Amino acid sequence: MFSLSIQSIQFTIEIIATFAFALSGIIAGIKKRMDLVGLCIVSGVSAFGGGTLRDVLLDRRPFFWVSHSTWLWGLITLCLLAMFFMRERHITLTEKAIQIPDALGLGLFTALGTQIALGLGMPAIVAALMGMMTAVFGGVLRDICCNEIPKAFNDHQPYAVLAFLGSWVLIGLSALNLPEWLTLLLSASFTTLLRWLAIQFKWKLPGQKSALKN
Amino acid sequence: MFSLSIQSIQFTIEIIATFAFALSGIIAGIKKRMDLVGLCIVSGVSAFGGGTLRDVLLDRRPFFWVSHSTWLWGLITLCLLAMFFMRERHITLTEKAIQIPDALGLGLFTALGTQIALGLGMPAIVAALMGMMTAVFGGVLRDICCNEIPKAFNDHQPYAVLAFLGSWVLIGLSALNLPEWLTLLLSASFTTLLRWLAIQFKWKLPGQKSALKN
Amino acid sequence: MFSLSIQSIQFTIEIIATFAFALSGIIAGIKKRMDLVGLCIVSGVSAFGGGTLRDVLLDRRPFFWVSHSTWLWGLITLCLLAMFFMRERHITLTEKAIQIPDALGLGLFTALGTQIALGLGMPAIVAALMGMMTAVFGGVLRDICCNEIPKAFNDHQPYAVLAFLGSWVLIGLSALNLPEWLTLLLSASFTTLLRWLAIQFKWKLPGQKSALKN
Repeated sequence: MFSLSIQSIQFTIEIIATFAFALSGIIAGIKKRMDLVGLCIVSGVSAFGGGTLRDVLLDRRPFFWVSHSTWLWGLITLCLLAMFFMRERHITLTEKAIQIPDALGLGLFTALGTQIALGLGMPAIVAALMGMMTAVFGGVLRDICCNEIPKAFNDHQPYAVLAFLGSWVLIGLSALNLPEWLTLLLSASFTTLLRWLAIQFKWKLPGQKSALKN
Repeated sequence: MFSLSIQSIQFTIEIIATFAFALSGIIAGIKKRMDLVGLCIVSGVSAFGGGTLRDVLLDRRPFFWVSHSTWLWGLITLCLLAMFFMRERHITLTEKAIQIPDALGLGLFTALGTQIALGLGMPAIVAALMGMMTAVFGGVLRDICCNEIPKAFNDHQPYAVLAFLGSWVLIGLSALNLPEWLTLLLSASFTTLLRWLAIQFKWKLPGQKSALKN
Repeated sequence: MFSLSIQSIQFTIEIIATFAFALSGIIAGIKKRMDLVGLCIVSGVSAFGGGTLRDVLLDRRPFFWVSHSTWLWGLITLCLLAMFFMRERHITLTEKAIQIPDALGLGLFTALGTQIALGLGMPAIVAALMGMMTAVFGGVLRDICCNEIPKAFNDHQPYAVLAFLGSWVLIGLSALNLPEWLTLLLSASFTTLLRWLAIQFKWKLPGQKSALKN
């Protein structure tokens, strides 16, 4: 029954992950009270930054936003809607509101980036790095545009390391010859769930003893 | 009479736009009292940053500064001259002094970037984005090197959005089968003029109601 | 006796330079009391950032860290060791501790980047720029991740300019038909030594008269 081609599965995942990160960018931009242009830029770099870096490093063309350029119109529409919606209703956006789509995008992009790199014959450690970079770079650009220290570099609450672990889950599952979609789904769920637990239970990475504030 | 090849027109535009942005970089560097090396770096990234990003994304080689590498010597000479000239005379550089070459470069690079992307068969929205990125990225790097918030992200006074509009002017004119040079010139003038009006009359983008300072 | 292939010489230089910059990144990260993930990221971007930028600009694949991916494991191990070692012993890391491996990496990457670009038929000025960028970009990313103003942009104490000079030494020596390894070694020693002298004797670039602090 599940005779889905790998292309169409990867395409679906790319869309959902892109949408999740676009949403996290919009929320971040609205919190910073950006105008429409700022909102489009910040949601655009969040959504497409990670995948574009991955494709430049892997020398893969065309980019997702080139071959499926209608999604760029979707992004602009989304920003417009968000802007008008937020003007009407005075919703208070908590920090959590960003973390949910961010965690979802983190899991999906990690799994997708790792699988694409594996498919191009990259060694496991390189594929794991590519997965992590795909997932993390969009958020890094988002946080830089918002003039905040990137979550990924401030990893006492685990973030990048979870993407790295999630990559290895995908690499491990790939060896089992499960269907592609199941491998992607399991790995993405693993990363997203772990990130969610890390936020809920305030997990901390072991840091250095005297963690002075610099 | 006007049998100019498209290559030679694009080449001319690239030179003028590069020169305009190099100048804006030099002025920004001198305002920050940089030394000669800093001045070369900041004018170099301003001048070549946007075009290089465009060519990496479009997978176009060689870069402008590789195939016309003598211009790099020109840039170094320009920085040297600027340095000695500024030492002799105590000119006060106002914010406006950057804005004129910046507006000129913005218009030219927008038109050029859009036309190159269209020529490579990109969809209209992608070509518009490429035009905007070509025009905006050099200035973003300049502002980052000068440790200022990029003008493009601080768009209450329209900047990136004008480049985006200018791209669409070029895309529209391209459909009319006008000569290449006229299309480029009209689109570039449109963007530069609009940017100039935005500065003169302090245009504001509609922002969010309570524009708190973060 | 010295019938070493140019590949194996370039490979050796790349490893030593990568190691030197990884070390500088680890020291910088430990000074900022980063956790293990932060340490891996900052040493990774320091070590591989410059070479990756060079290869993207020159359209050269595969990257060093793709074709020799075992070195990525080496980097992670190094970070782990550094972390545990620093916990045990309370070593005070002075600013100098970063400057030694940084100067070494600066010289080696400058020479290597210039030679690779020359080998690809780039004009001399472009090769010199590529050498400088290879050497400087890793450190720029390191300093950005550590939230410090990049040494390369703060060049009153010569840094980038020495890499630029070192590139020209390599270009000059290349015309003499010396063995490859000797050319590399002489140019790298020149840059590293000059950087060391610049630090020891607090050389200053001639700045603008009234060097106000911005």
